[in-house]
Amino acid sequence: MPVPHLTTALKGPLLELESRIIAAQPQIEHWFRSQWQHHDTPFYGSVDLRNSGFKLAPVDMNLFPGGFNNLNPEFLPLAVQAAQSAVDKVCPEARSLLLIPENHTRNTFYLQNVATLAHIFGQAGLKVRLGSLNPEITEPTELVAANGDKLLLEPLVRQGNRLRLADGFDPCVVLLNNDLSAGIPALLQNLEQALLPPLHAGWAVRRKTHHFRAYDQVCQDFSRLLSIDPWLINPYFAQCSNLDFHSRQGEEELARTVDEMLAKIRVKYAEYGITQDPFVIVKADAGTYGMGIMSVKSAEEVVGLNRKARNKMSVVKEGLEVSEVIVQEGVYTFESINEAVAEPVIYMMDRYVIGGFYRVHTGRGIDENLNAPGMHFVPLSFECPCLPDKAGEPDCPPNRFYAYGVIARLALLASALELEATDPDA
Amino acid sequence: MPVPHLTTALKGPLLELESRIIAAQPQIEHWFRSQWQHHDTPFYGSVDLRNSGFKLAPVDMNLFPGGFNNLNPEFLPLAVQAAQSAVDKVCPEARSLLLIPENHTRNTFYLQNVATLAHIFGQAGLKVRLGSLNPEITEPTELVAANGDKLLLEPLVRQGNRLRLADGFDPCVVLLNNDLSAGIPALLQNLEQALLPPLHAGWAVRRKTHHFRAYDQVCQDFSRLLSIDPWLINPYFAQCSNLDFHSRQGEEELARTVDEMLAKIRVKYAEYGITQDPFVIVKADAGTYGMGIMSVKSAEEVVGLNRKARNKMSVVKEGLEVSEVIVQEGVYTFESINEAVAEPVIYMMDRYVIGGFYRVHTGRGIDENLNAPGMHFVPLSFECPCLPDKAGEPDCPPNRFYAYGVIARLALLASALELEATDPDA
Repeated sequence: MPVPHLTTALKGPLLELESRIIAAQPQIEHWFRSQWQHHDTPFYGSVDLRNSGFKLAPVDMNLFPGGFNNLNPEFLPLAVQAAQSAVDKVCPEARSLLLIPENHTRNTFYLQNVATLAHIFGQAGLKVRLGSLNPEITEPTELVAANGDKLLLEPLVRQGNRLRLADGFDPCVVLLNNDLSAGIPALLQNLEQALLPPLHAGWAVRRKTHHFRAYDQVCQDFSRLLSIDPWLINPYFAQCSNLDFHSRQGEEELARTVDEMLAKIRVKYAEYGITQDPFVIVKADAGTYGMGIMSVKSAEEVVGLNRKARNKMSVVKEGLEVSEVIVQEGVYTFESINEAVAEPVIYMMDRYVIGGFYRVHTGRGIDENLNAPGMHFVPLSFECPCLPDKAGEPDCPPNRFYAYGVIARLALLASALELEATDPDA
Repeated sequence: MPVPHLTTALKGPLLELESRIIAAQPQIEHWFRSQWQHHDTPFYGSVDLRNSGFKLAPVDMNLFPGGFNNLNPEFLPLAVQAAQSAVDKVCPEARSLLLIPENHTRNTFYLQNVATLAHIFGQAGLKVRLGSLNPEITEPTELVAANGDKLLLEPLVRQGNRLRLADGFDPCVVLLNNDLSAGIPALLQNLEQALLPPLHAGWAVRRKTHHFRAYDQVCQDFSRLLSIDPWLINPYFAQCSNLDFHSRQGEEELARTVDEMLAKIRVKYAEYGITQDPFVIVKADAGTYGMGIMSVKSAEEVVGLNRKARNKMSVVKEGLEVSEVIVQEGVYTFESINEAVAEPVIYMMDRYVIGGFYRVHTGRGIDENLNAPGMHFVPLSFECPCLPDKAGEPDCPPNRFYAYGVIARLALLASALELEATDPDA
């Protein structure tokens, strides 16, 4: 697989923030080490970042990351080493791992992600097999990924408190790559095997607002460490509940929230001399896959939505109704390559940044969501690892990617806090 | 730095052993994870391997490895990640590291190794400075490595039980890249800072025979796991003490030991249909740098040595007298590139294999020691990481390097046992 060069994507104005991050690298790494002494690292995760040149912030944190197939294959050894560390912490005696992917078996790019994950854990020394929650998978079924890799999906068998496959395969660890949007299946409840990530990391329980509340906390600490305005790395957000897009219930409150947030952003834009129009993103608080999302620049845009827009907003993955949304400050994407908008996604396993890629999309604007249904982005893997080059310019690819890795790890740490706060056994 | 291709170096006969190692990868990785639950991993290390096609074995284990500069720079991120893990275990609160190199400041390739190590720990997020035990370094001294990298060596200052630099730099961790052949300096004794590797890992205390005794033990277990003859991965060895090469004291006993070992090897060669002549290596039990080493094919060769040979054998690094030797089964090197003999060296940090290179030397035979004074080897870094390719031939580079990594980790584990057994505080 050829790895494209990224230089043309790195056109944003030089970030004072990046310089500070590079200069403070020893303090930052020390701070992360201290944090991880007190919080359990999520097993894996990916973070969608936006870089507007004046602001670098996470807009979404995925605890069941797809897209491992988009990472630079040259750096997969980093993922393998991180996987060894992750397994070692959770279950050092593990010999075998059952990977449970999403149910959409027709997305051959997603299947390539599953194959990559299976490969990584195989390289880390585990016997890996794939078990499916999909009721259509009633017998071992071979599927072919976009790149031709073959996968064998097998039906899950619950025996007592253990999850097995039909031939008796009895995994030590069950790894979810399924975000449980449809709820927590009985099959997965009260397992005696190690189940990762925990069930409450799934969208049946998770809320974006929980995450960004935790992220607020993380940013407070980190911004103090770097003596920066936390706003530079943290988008404003607010929650709106009891919405019903069909009956227009809660519309006014939503409009008020949007209005207030736009006002707050305007103050910050004025403070930093930013001339762009502020915008906010409204999205389902429990949801993913870019469904139920709108980008608005004024409160009027959320009032009196037409039927099509209301339908679009009201339902997310697995047909779930949306009654809670997060209203999030929009962060412009000012990275581009060949005039196409590019949004970075950073991947982590255990506490380690293992790589990233850009979602490159030609047909979309800089204030739109790039992770949307039907969206065919071109992945552009990072050409170098997320390690700083202290002799390089603050904005050279290694330093920019290092800064991305730092912000992504802040989101990872926020997820650790979020999972602690929502742990039903705590 | 261009990375040469290695295909021509991989000409040895296909190893049944390599196939077994690849097939048993999940069991092997599980076994290592279990072992590391009970033993502390040495901080770092490198292992000299020999591959004769019929036998793959370590011949030396270095706990103060030089040569990091010879690793493929593309895989340095693996070293950085492993360094983070290593530091995290030993001293998660660490902010700064003092690296103490060897005293030979004129070896510019060694200086490049020191620069690479400093770079790795810098990338891992530590403030790194260099302190010297060399009495000639009385003030901060800039040295230039072979590749032009600049290093600042500074005199050490002992204050109470802490090691510092003159300007007050007070490191959290002191990392030795000096093997203490000259004894343990008072400066390093009873430090309250974390000192790595521990003092008893230095050649003032260490003995090759201690290591290979521990390696015997490791090989017993591992060979049972793989159902192989331990001899395939373990060279015979014996110790001879109370030698005085100058007065020829102990010569007869040495000859007898050599004779017995050659007889044992002959039995094994017959069992496996190997037609080569057995040979043994006689080397100082406490020593390194390829000094005090001879390769012999009959007992007569160690009797009545001429003055030159006796002088060569009697003194190792730092002018120490040799009175104990290890007599070790010689393992042929059947790897070559462009008709030059190639000996693999594998590097590890924490429990991770982070890469390796070949010492390539045109002027030496397949039964000679390749790490000798005045020897100008050409380093040939491994072109891929030491991870298996299960779809590949057992002998393809990734699989061969994986097998090398496995054997190297056995030696690393043996060092862990060795350091436990020789720990003065245990």
